[in-house]
Amino acid sequence: MAIQLEKEIANRVETVNQYVEKYLSAMDLPQGDAISELRKSMLYSATNGGKRFRPVLSLLVAELFGCSQERILPFATAVELIHTYSLIHDDLPCMDNDDVRRGKPTNHKVFGEDFALLAGDALLTEAFLLIADGYSDTSFLVGQLTRLLSEAAGVRGMVGGQAIDLRAGQKKFSKEELTHLHLLKTGALIRVAVEGASVIAGARPTDIESLRKFGEGLGLAFQVADDVLDHGEKDQDQRSFTGIMGLEGTKTYLQEISKNTLAELHKVSAEAPMLEYLISFNQNRQV
Amino acid sequence: MAIQLEKEIANRVETVNQYVEKYLSAMDLPQGDAISELRKSMLYSATNGGKRFRPVLSLLVAELFGCSQERILPFATAVELIHTYSLIHDDLPCMDNDDVRRGKPTNHKVFGEDFALLAGDALLTEAFLLIADGYSDTSFLVGQLTRLLSEAAGVRGMVGGQAIDLRAGQKKFSKEELTHLHLLKTGALIRVAVEGASVIAGARPTDIESLRKFGEGLGLAFQVADDVLDHGEKDQDQRSFTGIMGLEGTKTYLQEISKNTLAELHKVSAEAPMLEYLISFNQNRQV
Repeated sequence: MAIQLEKEIANRVETVNQYVEKYLSAMDLPQGDAISELRKSMLYSATNGGKRFRPVLSLLVAELFGCSQERILPFATAVELIHTYSLIHDDLPCMDNDDVRRGKPTNHKVFGEDFALLAGDALLTEAFLLIADGYSDTSFLVGQLTRLLSEAAGVRGMVGGQAIDLRAGQKKFSKEELTHLHLLKTGALIRVAVEGASVIAGARPTDIESLRKFGEGLGLAFQVADDVLDHGEKDQDQRSFTGIMGLEGTKTYLQEISKNTLAELHKVSAEAPMLEYLISFNQNRQV
Repeated sequence: MAIQLEKEIANRVETVNQYVEKYLSAMDLPQGDAISELRKSMLYSATNGGKRFRPVLSLLVAELFGCSQERILPFATAVELIHTYSLIHDDLPCMDNDDVRRGKPTNHKVFGEDFALLAGDALLTEAFLLIADGYSDTSFLVGQLTRLLSEAAGVRGMVGGQAIDLRAGQKKFSKEELTHLHLLKTGALIRVAVEGASVIAGARPTDIESLRKFGEGLGLAFQVADDVLDHGEKDQDQRSFTGIMGLEGTKTYLQEISKNTLAELHKVSAEAPMLEYLISFNQNRQV
């Protein structure tokens, strides 16, 4: 069962990989060597072996309601481009100053800080063009998806979470504060990958609401599971759940979130074995 | 006549100033001191005494067709927020490394490079939320405006122009190449301020097309006029029109662009004395 589901997910990762690469390679851009180089910078980070967690989630959710991959891929790709831009900007020297991501030099180490900054800006902007072009036949969708994406990605979501993280310093977080941080910094974009897909697929409002909570819970559960896996090295870190609650307390919290997330999924009017699998996989993962 | 028109424009600058400040101050944001600080960073650069050239153009164009200020202000503000974000990112040490803008410390000198980067990201993202929320009653507009804005702001427009500028080095530009650079780097956003406003105002397609060309021409004419004013200090600069064509050649080019831009404006089915004034004002300006 698990092996079969892993294969199913790997297939969808490949579908996303192909679409992202094809889309960015085919963008109709103005002339100039510099613009070609900027495209390369965008492609470098958007095709560097990421897990495609968010766009695959979008595909899986869309399938629940019989929505085709072709229909969901522009949105799924928009979410992934926003995720990619956030990583490029996060890696910059004025932020986390990381030289390596996924075993390869970070964007600014290859293309320079200026082009890394611009590649991030361009990917974020392109995400909204993907929405406008991808759903132009159903214009109310463009409005809904643009609103959902901008709320999730901007100061009301991901960027707001980054701001909290940057200014945390030596602050001692409570469990609630750390949860708030993660719900914004990473949770918002994971949630919108699920919510937006359910909207495109034409899910009924109660299903959209349940899936929205599922997405939010799954995103949070991934962060908590990361802290469980990194315990030991992070136990003194006041921005880790193990630093706040200890290993056992964090494991209990992970179980609680996973259980609630699964309960939301069970409210959905369609069977969702692969989404269930993601919850239990995360709960038990060793990497 | 000129004094009256200047007053009319000053009134609209004030309208934009009030709307921008009110909008950013009233954004419903998550809790947290860091997010409050990020809002301050966004406000600092968005309300630092800019000329409001782009949003005022949007207002003036909308008025030609009887479109209210209330209707056009969300779009006009979106364009201005994108302009603001581009200035914040341009000023960063990895780009132009400027300490002062409009007589005040640049954003990163006040809030740090990390928050300047995030403020820029947040302003760009918020621009699309303004579109989605501002025109949700006319959903086809959201799609059109999102497409126009993302094309004008991203790698296909402004960001593409910035890339060319950054990689220009000691390259000797031709007149055509320098024109291409300016049409992307600054022209695209000025053009879209005009084009988007005409779309919102319900202008007929032929008027939209003429206004689009007017916007593009006016944006270029401003750059050329800047080079005329800065001649002397820029005469050896291969990225200035005076460096390429000399002062007289540049003045001739400015006259030619202004004439063509005025001709486009005359094709529009409405009288546009204030837009005409902008062309002649620019042609003769001493600052």
